[in-house]
Amino acid sequence: MPEQFVTTRRVEFRDTDAAGIMHFSSYFTFMEEAEHELLRHLGLSVVLRDDEGTISWPRVAASCEFQRAVKFEDLVQIELRVARLGRRSATYAFRFLHDRQVVATGRMTAVCCRFGQDAPPRSIPIPGAFTEQLRRFAVAAADGA
Amino acid sequence: MPEQFVTTRRVEFRDTDAAGIMHFSSYFTFMEEAEHELLRHLGLSVVLRDDEGTISWPRVAASCEFQRAVKFEDLVQIELRVARLGRRSATYAFRFLHDRQVVATGRMTAVCCRFGQDAPPRSIPIPGAFTEQLRRFAVAAADGA
Amino acid sequence: MPEQFVTTRRVEFRDTDAAGIMHFSSYFTFMEEAEHELLRHLGLSVVLRDDEGTISWPRVAASCEFQRAVKFEDLVQIELRVARLGRRSATYAFRFLHDRQVVATGRMTAVCCRFGQDAPPRSIPIPGAFTEQLRRFAVAAADGA
Amino acid sequence: MPEQFVTTRRVEFRDTDAAGIMHFSSYFTFMEEAEHELLRHLGLSVVLRDDEGTISWPRVAASCEFQRAVKFEDLVQIELRVARLGRRSATYAFRFLHDRQVVATGRMTAVCCRFGQDAPPRSIPIPGAFTEQLRRFAVAAADGA
Repeated sequence: MPEQFVTTRRVEFRDTDAAGIMHFSSYFTFMEEAEHELLRHLGLSVVLRDDEGTISWPRVAASCEFQRAVKFEDLVQIELRVARLGRRSATYAFRFLHDRQVVATGRMTAVCCRFGQDAPPRSIPIPGAFTEQLRRFAVAAADGA
Repeated sequence: MPEQFVTTRRVEFRDTDAAGIMHFSSYFTFMEEAEHELLRHLGLSVVLRDDEGTISWPRVAASCEFQRAVKFEDLVQIELRVARLGRRSATYAFRFLHDRQVVATGRMTAVCCRFGQDAPPRSIPIPGAFTEQLRRFAVAAADGA
Repeated sequence: MPEQFVTTRRVEFRDTDAAGIMHFSSYFTFMEEAEHELLRHLGLSVVLRDDEGTISWPRVAASCEFQRAVKFEDLVQIELRVARLGRRSATYAFRFLHDRQVVATGRMTAVCCRFGQDAPPRSIPIPGAFTEQLRRFAVAAADGA
Repeated sequence: MPEQFVTTRRVEFRDTDAAGIMHFSSYFTFMEEAEHELLRHLGLSVVLRDDEGTISWPRVAASCEFQRAVKFEDLVQIELRVARLGRRSATYAFRFLHDRQVVATGRMTAVCCRFGQDAPPRSIPIPGAFTEQLRRFAVAAADGA
């Protein structure tokens, strides 16, 4: 069984909207913040600099389904698993809970890319430091892209 | 053939991130802004008040796939169609273009709900004013929910 | 000497902009989040409901001066003092530090208001529960508004 | 009499908060958007690239006073004047109106800086292209910084 990474976020006032609940776009920033926190927790970062430039992870897909609403000051538990660890991309799966009830589920796929000077980002094989660390959170480690 | 609704947004500085491009979460706010603009264009609003309280449209699902990046001050054309007009929900489909190239595609499903005093929102059949207006943008008008 | 309330925030990716640094508007949301955290710490909330409706604190002024930039994943220490505790308003003073260097200073004034049904918010004397708790963080407790 | 630059923004759903009104931090992004729109209107941009690198305008101060609230879908008129055009910085003054009533006033000071490779930004004299264009919006063109 893969591990899951768990973190929490509080719904801040800027996350709420005139319907009195957390704006749906904030779930996507929560997903990303949980991903970044996981990478920091593993001694990594979503933005790594080396001699050749920068390695980062542009998002190519993101989705979320919303079951319940959360309000200002609610604490949201975010569970993260690696739904799929490809050769060049990782898909994260998220569950959001409040008071032990699932409020939303989401997925996000990021592609490992090298950013050079004056060149568009190009996808690269995920460096070993990432695959070794992410594998234990991975439901499936595929051979494809 | 259903009509499509077209609007544009400029990528503002607050929409960009340290990767130098528009943050992926802003595509979701652009989707919502296009939906709201369509409803205004039709003489409606995503938040309607009547004698019984408020009718609004909580989101139950949203997804986006990102093909290209857009940068600060880029103009983004947003094309909106109603992918599915149900009895109680509408699914909008979006294409984002810059310089005539598709940069992203997305979908968003909103459920028509009545918000009363001291009661959780409950889904209601979409009022006729909406279905009549939205039908001409609809790829499919289904009988289900 | 008044106490100060200290909290930290990490600069998230959505807080950054294409200049590679935290967007200046995020300092204002950090100020507000520190204020709200202080009130929670004191057993209070910036939005309190009682029999007559809701008591909350609309902002009437906010300002910030920026000395240094902070970047993605930087930890920012936020120091909060109550610069002035009036009869109907509170002015908070903030210092933002990173690596022990001041990066910005700010102020925010909020007015205690009652929000009723179908009536505009009106300012009210700050309830005793707030003044008693906030006084120990207050540089000056004035008699005026 | 200096000219003023006038633009409008609609309060979008993401700008609102659980108090049902526009979040105070959005006034600051509106200020910046109006500044950027003025520069585009003058054939300039807040981010200019030349042979030596990039010229941009970090904010060093921003403030806003809030008189009235605006709500979802309200149209906000933004009036911009150049309160002070220094040698290395510009201070913009803003008035926000809704239904011909002033809802807020603000100020923002930005310093003209050169951003090089691997060096911190350093302030530079404002290039002639900017001063010539901005002068007609300037209440005062000072000799100082």
